[in-house]
This record gives sequence, structure tokens and C-alpha cells, in this order.
Amino acid sequence: MQAEIIAVGTEILLGQITNTNSTHIAQGLAELGIDSYYQTVVGDNPARLAAVIEVAAQRNDLVILSGGLGPTKDDLTKQTLAKYLNVPLVEDVAAMQVITDRFNQTQQVMTENNRLQALYPAGATPLTNHNGLAVGAFYQSPDSADFLLLPGPPREMTMMFDTEAKPKLQAAYGEQAQIYSRVLRFFGIGESKLVTELQHLINDQAAVTIAPYAKINEVTLRLSAQADTQTAAKALLDTTEAKIRDLVGDYLYGYGDDNTLVKVVIDEMIAQKLSITAAESLTAGLFQSTIGSVPGVSAIFPGGFVTYANAAKHQLVNVPQATIDADGVVSAATAKAMAQGAQQQLQTDTALSFTGVAGPDALEGQPAGTVWIGLAYRDQPVKAQLYHFAGDRQRIRERSVMAGLDLLRRQIAADETLKK
Amino acid sequence: MQAEIIAVGTEILLGQITNTNSTHIAQGLAELGIDSYYQTVVGDNPARLAAVIEVAAQRNDLVILSGGLGPTKDDLTKQTLAKYLNVPLVEDVAAMQVITDRFNQTQQVMTENNRLQALYPAGATPLTNHNGLAVGAFYQSPDSADFLLLPGPPREMTMMFDTEAKPKLQAAYGEQAQIYSRVLRFFGIGESKLVTELQHLINDQAAVTIAPYAKINEVTLRLSAQADTQTAAKALLDTTEAKIRDLVGDYLYGYGDDNTLVKVVIDEMIAQKLSITAAESLTAGLFQSTIGSVPGVSAIFPGGFVTYANAAKHQLVNVPQATIDADGVVSAATAKAMAQGAQQQLQTDTALSFTGVAGPDALEGQPAGTVWIGLAYRDQPVKAQLYHFAGDRQRIRERSVMAGLDLLRRQIAADETLKK
Repeated sequence: MQAEIIAVGTEILLGQITNTNSTHIAQGLAELGIDSYYQTVVGDNPARLAAVIEVAAQRNDLVILSGGLGPTKDDLTKQTLAKYLNVPLVEDVAAMQVITDRFNQTQQVMTENNRLQALYPAGATPLTNHNGLAVGAFYQSPDSADFLLLPGPPREMTMMFDTEAKPKLQAAYGEQAQIYSRVLRFFGIGESKLVTELQHLINDQAAVTIAPYAKINEVTLRLSAQADTQTAAKALLDTTEAKIRDLVGDYLYGYGDDNTLVKVVIDEMIAQKLSITAAESLTAGLFQSTIGSVPGVSAIFPGGFVTYANAAKHQLVNVPQATIDADGVVSAATAKAMAQGAQQQLQTDTALSFTGVAGPDALEGQPAGTVWIGLAYRDQPVKAQLYHFAGDRQRIRERSVMAGLDLLRRQIAADETLKK
Repeated sequence: MQAEIIAVGTEILLGQITNTNSTHIAQGLAELGIDSYYQTVVGDNPARLAAVIEVAAQRNDLVILSGGLGPTKDDLTKQTLAKYLNVPLVEDVAAMQVITDRFNQTQQVMTENNRLQALYPAGATPLTNHNGLAVGAFYQSPDSADFLLLPGPPREMTMMFDTEAKPKLQAAYGEQAQIYSRVLRFFGIGESKLVTELQHLINDQAAVTIAPYAKINEVTLRLSAQADTQTAAKALLDTTEAKIRDLVGDYLYGYGDDNTLVKVVIDEMIAQKLSITAAESLTAGLFQSTIGSVPGVSAIFPGGFVTYANAAKHQLVNVPQATIDADGVVSAATAKAMAQGAQQQLQTDTALSFTGVAGPDALEGQPAGTVWIGLAYRDQPVKAQLYHFAGDRQRIRERSVMAGLDLLRRQIAADETLKK
């Protein structure tokens, strides 16, 4: 079983947008165990599109087209495919109703070209567009390749692929070997170090394959097992995960493609009813806005401080001027005073502080990337840790936030008074 | 002149990484006025790669390959290309010196496969890799397509393409018509409204083409003029920009591909010596961390407040409990009190406040997306404005920040006491 993804859109060829649709579809194919050896991008040009469809249909069992289903004169994908298949376009009555309702509701006059969005190649199964008006289609052919037609806007495409297309692909090609996978997430260890530590496990990929992938500020490992049942796959994945944990478990913070360090840490803090605040200098609110992204954080986060200027450090979180004079702002003493001051102001269980050099210029003779993170945790003595981060201003600030979250994660994991 | 971009990498086919390399190269080709009708992705498989090279060389004048130049056994791009061209691989002496120096420096033993990174097809011009060890190449052929070989890691690829390859492409194909472009940036107007307003200008693209593009929370227009000299192009672009300004100039905030609303606003505030603070509820520090991303902001930004809980609104920026009781936290009165309190606390020229419903749940009976932004500006009466944003939690918070920046931009533009 082999599929090719064709993204249709002149704006991709001009570099105006990045082709994230093919990434999303490729991930889905990998999960379904469908091989994919080629991806193609072609513009909104019917002759070139027809040529690309022809080549793809010859070398694949399934051709997936995204883009060009809309109402404008540039949108010609389904017309071109219908011509290739030698079938007419027919109307999806339900989709047409949605389109006419939409225009009635907004009291706009519907121009004829909008009807195009409800058409699909005869013989196909139409696919509902939950985030737009253009209908998709899944065409199964006994004597040529099968075709999947998806819209171009990523919001429409991902929703249709995940909810409408994927179950149909699974049903159609279900006899294929099924791949079960598990994603492990690591922070604080680089990809090359992780790969070196796990080298013999990665080389010996008999039952379970291990694919490392460096994301921004973290690394994930995708474990994949081919098996007949989910139970059998789980046993294989558990065994491999246990071996990985023995070697690098200290850096493993969670699971899943869509998980994040902040979600794992804040969800645990909500569960443990541990309240938090922060005093931020170089990060300027980035830590607080990051924890603010987690729904439900209001239960444990009353608010906090951005203390960019020295005067604000003193005024808002009571850092003694003498501390700044003696040790400088980029120092353990200032980081500790900031964390302690923030914790006292808002009476929280824990407080983090960030003080350092975001760059591009040095500060107090210390280079960009020098960062102290302070941590006040319950009634324990306040701590501070020094980091040296590489990268530009934004990267240094992001790494500081991630390092702060990791400090918190380790502190909470080490707290034996908490129920685990 | 027509070019095709081929990205080589199994990890793209598996959806593990997004093919941003092709986007970057496509942008560069558009700037050079080189047409591109196809993009292809193929895995690290020599037979399929050879087939793809063959097809691309037949239908293009230039074929650009990225990926597969590294030292591992998967990296076969230049071997495959050399075979296609029927030339041997030769060593770039300077690149080999860099590789051996690197291994000497880190006192590691250099394995033989590392030498591969210094090889390129005989007859090509080697291209220096400023961010890595694998050398690139530009191969010009009198009787077939030309080839450009680039590394796969985006940091290495973008640097090599921009600094090494692009000037050589310009020199080689410089007889092509040159395209000059200018990017206009808009905030507060949607893409469809912008296109409707400018419809007759867009349709009448004789001398200057106008390409709209919706980015996250904003829209850009790329004006492109084909001309023999920069002066002639500038005159064409100026004329079109003036017509656009007449219609939608109120929403135009700046220029350039890499510009942002925050940069325009904060640079103007630094120039005008206007200091700023903020009190943030639903945005939880996102506004302050956004302005903190601009180098030099410390000159006008002492710090500020995240006031998530009601108690923090009262304690940190003196919002009277009576105001919250009478009007609720999602109200003009609370937004005004937050802005005024923040301004008074830190004695700044201006202060913004954000209070509203980030979601997913409603608050005080108001749906997610309901946001009040308060603005205290110098000694003017404090104002508050109501917004209704669509999208998920993160989107609502980002839109709030952008709306706050736009409020500031308009306030500063309207201040006639400032030197412009």
C-alpha cells in the first residue's frame, strides 16, 4: 500500500506559505501504516496538475490531493481530477444546503461560483467540511489508483483528514499491518546525546523502532511496534520504554505528540493544589504567559510581576538595593531575593524568578545567555541556578522559561510530602 | 528560466518534520524572478532519487536539491547526482581542513565517512557551509539542467542559500527580468475585506502585481514591479502604494517581510521616550513578554503586573473591590482601573490593561473571546475598548495583545504634541 501527497497551490511554489498540509497528512499515513515515497507540489494550473496526477496514479495505490476546492477561478483540482477519471461532477445536496443557508443567514447574494464548492466527482464518497464550505471526496477505483480530495486551508484540511478521511482510509486499507506508536518526551538532553545513550537500542530495532526527533528546546522519541493487537503492541512498547527509562529516565517528562512540558507541570500543580507566582526580568512575562496558556491555571496562579528595571525589582518584589549593588542584577543573590519577594507578596507555595542577559548586548560584563533562575518552594531555603543559553534574544528567553519549568518539575517530583 | 526544488529526506515523508527548506528556497527564487512550477519530496533512496532527478532535469533549467549531504550511510544525494551527471566526486580541500580541524579540536577520532562531507561533483563550484561541515555545490551544465546542492538542516541550508548560492544564481541567470518588491503590513482588516476594497487595483495588475497574504492576526500585501532599474521600480511601487493608502491607509502600520506590529510600536515609543507598563489578566504576561522581545525596550519598560486573580488586581494595581463587585472583572470599569493603577504604580507615560475571557469556559456569563482593553495615556482620561475575538484560548490571548498594540499605535499617531 503506497500513497503520494500532492499539494496544489501557487502560493506554496512562491514560498508565501509553508506546506504544512503534507506534513499533517504524512503523519496520518505513517500512523495508518501506509507507505509514502513521494510528495509533490504543483500550482493552480490544470495542465501541470493533470500531468502530476497521471504520474502519481501510475506509481501509487492512493493519491491524496489538497487544495484548489474553493469557489474562485483558480480552484480547479476537482475539475481536473474528474476529467482524468472521466466522470462528471455531481452535487452534494447536504453541502449545498449549508452553502445556501450561509448566504441566507448573512443576507448576501450567492454568486453561481459558490455552487462549485458542493460538487465532487461522481462515484466518490463526499467528505464533510466542518470548518468551511468546500466538500472533499474519497474515490475508490477498481482499476486505477484511489484518490482522496481535501481542501487547502489547513484548518479545513486537518479537520476533514482527521475526522472524515482517516476512518475511511483505515476501513479501506485495514488489511495492512497496523503500527502502534508511543511518543516519549524529553527535556534537558540534546538529540545527539540521547541517541548516543540509546545507540544499542536504536540499532537493535527488531520489534520496536525508535525514531528520535529534535523539536524546539526538547527531543521526542517515537516508539513504533507492528503487531496484530493493541495488547501485543503495548507489551512490546512497555518493554522498550522500560529499557529507555533505565538509561535516560531522568529527562523523560511525559508522553504524546501534542503534550508540552508546561502542560505536564501545571496539570500536576493543579492536581497537587500548589500555587505559583513569578518575578521576571529578562523573560518579561514569558514564563507567566506560558503557564497562562494551560486551561484551569487560574486555580493556582493569582498573578505575578515583571520586574525589568532595577527600581521595579525593589518596588514590586522588595529586592534590597544593597543586594543589587553588591552582587549585580545577574546574580544568585538577586534571583533568590526576587523569588522570595514574589512568594511573600502573593503568599504562594512556590515562586520562580528569572534574571539574566537576553542580549543582544552584554550586561554587567556578562554575555548574552547568562541566566539565573531562582526557586522559592514552600518553606524550603530559596535556591538559584545558573544557566548559559545559546541563541538569539527570543531563544534565550524561551530556553529560560523551559529551564524554569524543568526546575519546578524536578522540585515537585522530589517532594515526598506530596501524594503521587 | 524555470527551477524545481527537490527536498530529500525520509523524515519529511513520515511527517516528522515540515519541509520549510522548500519554502525558503521558493521565496528566494521568486525574488530572483526565477519561475518554479513543481516541488518534490523524496526519501533517502538512491533509485527513487535518481528517477526524480531525471524527471526534474527534463522539465527545468535548474534543479535544486536539499538534504542528504551528511556523513551517514543514508546520505546519498551527491553520490546519486554525480552518477546522473557521470562525473566523479572530488574533495574541497578547504572544507576537508575544517573537518579535520574540528575533530582535532574536540580530540575525537575522525571516522572515514566524515570525509564524505567535503566531496562535491567534479566541475561544480563548491559552496561553503558556515553552519556545518557538509559542503554544497553549484553545477552549471551546457547541455542539461544546472544543479544546486544544499544541505538539509535548515540552519545550514538557509545560511548557504542566502550567502553562497543566491549571489551565484543572480550572476548566472542575471539576464532574467528583475523583480522588485515591497511588502505592506496591515492590522485590523481581514484579508477578504482588504481584497474587496482593493479589487480594481488587484485586477488591473499591469505594471505592479499585488499579492495579498493572510498571516496570523494580520495581512500583508506584496507589491511586485518588473523593471530595468531600481529607480524605475520604486516609482511604480510608490504610485501603487499611494492608491492603496487612499483606500485602506488607516490599517497600514509598516513595511517589510520581517517586520511586526510590536516592533513598529515599541521602536516609535523608544524614539519618543514614552514609557509603558501593563496589568494583564487573561493575557497573563503575553503583552509584556511580546514587548520584551524588542531589543532596547528596557529604556521605556520598567516592568509590570500579571493580575490573574481578583485579589491580585486589588493588591497589585489597586482595583477597588467595589468596582469588581459592581461591574464584574470583565468590564470597562475594571479595565480602566487596572490601567490607571498600573500607570500610577510605576509612573509611566502609558499603561495597558487586559481583562476578559480566554476560555474555554465562559466567565461572569460572558463567552470566551470577550475582552476589554484599557489604555491610560499620559494625563488623558483613561479609556477602555470592548472586543469579541474568535478562536481558541491561545488565539484569543494573541489577538488581545495585537489589539492592544494597535490601540497604542493609533493613540501615539493621534498625539499631536509628539514630533513626527
